[in-house]
Amino acid sequence: MQADWLIKNIHLATFDPTVAAPYGAIRDALVAVAAERILWAGPAAQAPSLDGAVVINGKGGWLTPGLIDCHTHLVYGGDRAEEFEWRLQGRSYADIAAQGGGILSTVAATRAASATQLLDSAARRLRALCAEGVTTVEIKSGYGLALDTERRMLVVARALGQQLPITVRTTFLGAHALPPQYQGDADGYIDTLVETVLPALAAEGLVDAVDVFCEGIGFSVAQCRRLFERARELGLPVKGHVEQLSYQGGARLVAEFGGLSVDHVEYLPETDLESLAQSGAVAVLLPGAFYYLQEQQKPPIAALRRWGIPMAVATDLNPGSSPMASLLLALNQACILFGLTPEEALLGATRHAAAALGLADRKGCISAGFDADMLLWDCGRPAEICYGINMQRPRHIWVGGRDV
Amino acid sequence: MQADWLIKNIHLATFDPTVAAPYGAIRDALVAVAAERILWAGPAAQAPSLDGAVVINGKGGWLTPGLIDCHTHLVYGGDRAEEFEWRLQGRSYADIAAQGGGILSTVAATRAASATQLLDSAARRLRALCAEGVTTVEIKSGYGLALDTERRMLVVARALGQQLPITVRTTFLGAHALPPQYQGDADGYIDTLVETVLPALAAEGLVDAVDVFCEGIGFSVAQCRRLFERARELGLPVKGHVEQLSYQGGARLVAEFGGLSVDHVEYLPETDLESLAQSGAVAVLLPGAFYYLQEQQKPPIAALRRWGIPMAVATDLNPGSSPMASLLLALNQACILFGLTPEEALLGATRHAAAALGLADRKGCISAGFDADMLLWDCGRPAEICYGINMQRPRHIWVGGRDV
Ligand SMILES: [Zn+2]
Ligand SMILES: [Zn+2]
Repeated sequence: MQADWLIKNIHLATFDPTVAAPYGAIRDALVAVAAERILWAGPAAQAPSLDGAVVINGKGGWLTPGLIDCHTHLVYGGDRAEEFEWRLQGRSYADIAAQGGGILSTVAATRAASATQLLDSAARRLRALCAEGVTTVEIKSGYGLALDTERRMLVVARALGQQLPITVRTTFLGAHALPPQYQGDADGYIDTLVETVLPALAAEGLVDAVDVFCEGIGFSVAQCRRLFERARELGLPVKGHVEQLSYQGGARLVAEFGGLSVDHVEYLPETDLESLAQSGAVAVLLPGAFYYLQEQQKPPIAALRRWGIPMAVATDLNPGSSPMASLLLALNQACILFGLTPEEALLGATRHAAAALGLADRKGCISAGFDADMLLWDCGRPAEICYGINMQRPRHIWVGGRDV
Repeated sequence: MQADWLIKNIHLATFDPTVAAPYGAIRDALVAVAAERILWAGPAAQAPSLDGAVVINGKGGWLTPGLIDCHTHLVYGGDRAEEFEWRLQGRSYADIAAQGGGILSTVAATRAASATQLLDSAARRLRALCAEGVTTVEIKSGYGLALDTERRMLVVARALGQQLPITVRTTFLGAHALPPQYQGDADGYIDTLVETVLPALAAEGLVDAVDVFCEGIGFSVAQCRRLFERARELGLPVKGHVEQLSYQGGARLVAEFGGLSVDHVEYLPETDLESLAQSGAVAVLLPGAFYYLQEQQKPPIAALRRWGIPMAVATDLNPGSSPMASLLLALNQACILFGLTPEEALLGATRHAAAALGLADRKGCISAGFDADMLLWDCGRPAEICYGINMQRPRHIWVGGRDV
């Protein structure tokens, strides 16, 4: 075989479902890379002859797939530090809203920001994720809430994928909040999204998936359904912020449309799990928002396990409910707050996160044919990645086979 | 005045109690440094003439005192990632203890480690703290539990202060756990500490303060009292891990001895606050351990405020209950989990943390005469430092006036 380079003297956490061990672990392994992809991965003793390849010594570390943050809102203007302080000073929500706090303050700041300003601030946050080993990230729109400003957010998201060593998947989240000019007319706003905004942005190639905020304080199942129907016509996969603060039936709707993921799901009832399991959607857990909001209702982890529903873990990076630029902390929180095992948490930032982005055939596993997005860790066992906070960073990061 | 350098075009969060504004804030300020100390700090418009000094442009950022992590156990051997994983797999505590888990596994790993190994692993953790702007750190012994191994830990702690740009304060915590050879004879172990170990280490200049683990699963108030009496004879200040998991009366004991701090204090009752307030001790909050252990009982923040007891915030960095090398996250957790305001949290890592280490006259404030340990942040308001996770790092760090 002809490889560009190979790494030996490593252990693999492949997360390959065909490898029976926990973490898909292969000790004393070797990985060969050619043309940005994994050419061969397995026990060093069984490696084929690989002449002419550059050899890297992994020094006994663990190699994992690049991490995938499958749910972020990391493009936005301003910040909400002042509102954070107000809340802790005991000011009421009504008072804070009257002062212009809440999501609409981010909408105003995002609308006011130039593309360059949005790009600069988002790049700073994204670099923090990259340094932790994130090699694929999903970025949502949803603070523009009008054609031109939603477009600006998605253009910035695409530009981030050009400027930084990371794969970006964009998600249209026009149905995130009701913009001020549509107060009292949510259906009218959905009309605009369905008839104008989504088709235009999809035609420009800016949309990889369509998301909704299906919630009492967001949009109804009927409104989300209309968007999903248009997404289906446009050939775009769907997903949803569902059952976060209350039960609405959004997960069932996502399942009906064969969606990629149901996100948050704190209030997801067992009765809706069968349809979800059959749909193949991933349940995306967002412990950062659970932590920031100090919620009490946890996602139904035991039931998700029982139904074999794949679980992903993401940052939900956003200025209001999860200003947290650390996927590694989200993994730790998934263990501490939700009781995931380290293996489940890491699956949630690799194979299952890839599935939540429709990338299950390319990313999230160390296996022949997959993209060579890989991390080398100086640790004695994979669980260390979830166990400590700010104690581990990858020693090497490869994106598409390139050391970054 | 003759200064070595000065920084202008900044806002100050001085935490100086004589500055009435929140954060001790002074906008449009100037700070001058000479001979490792702050020579002058105040409004730029009132600055004295400072000829010949190098001028640094702060570009509108905020300058704070260097952060102080006043409670860590960061020198140790091994890690507890495997035990972390066992716990999340649902294994019982009895099972884990039988497998050699718990604090005694860290004692065994620490005893087995060479000074060089301890230094290398601790330096990695300490560098993570330094990168966040920690310029003073407390480091405890307590995983040796015998003269030679407790000495090794303290020697390593002192060496860290030589090798890294940080001030280290050492604390003797021989009364951390009962070593295996003393099972069933806690009084006998205290005898050894009082008669042999503490006097020897104090004579070698390795001990800046004496700490105890006063708890049902640790040592009794009577046992802690004997150690405190010896500390007093040796002229050493005391502090205690008290009322963390249950009420024992340890805080009252620390107050009686005029101690520096009472740490954890989840179960501290209002009845003991008067003596504490009179003693001047600082209440050190350790939200990392609260988070990792998923405790329900919070420290009595409202009562501590009512009695005017200064609150500090620290990482408790240790391999079992708080493997968290991030003081910035501890500040965020103090806000989210305990309801501190950002100002209280930052006071807890500056002025009040300095007091918890007996350094109130030298560190934790930006004020003339104080050590020039300072951080420059690219943020719009000090609250941002507590609000985001992994979103802020100081742009510049000065330790003793030197840019590091
Ligand atoms: Zn979200
Ligand atoms: Zn401690």
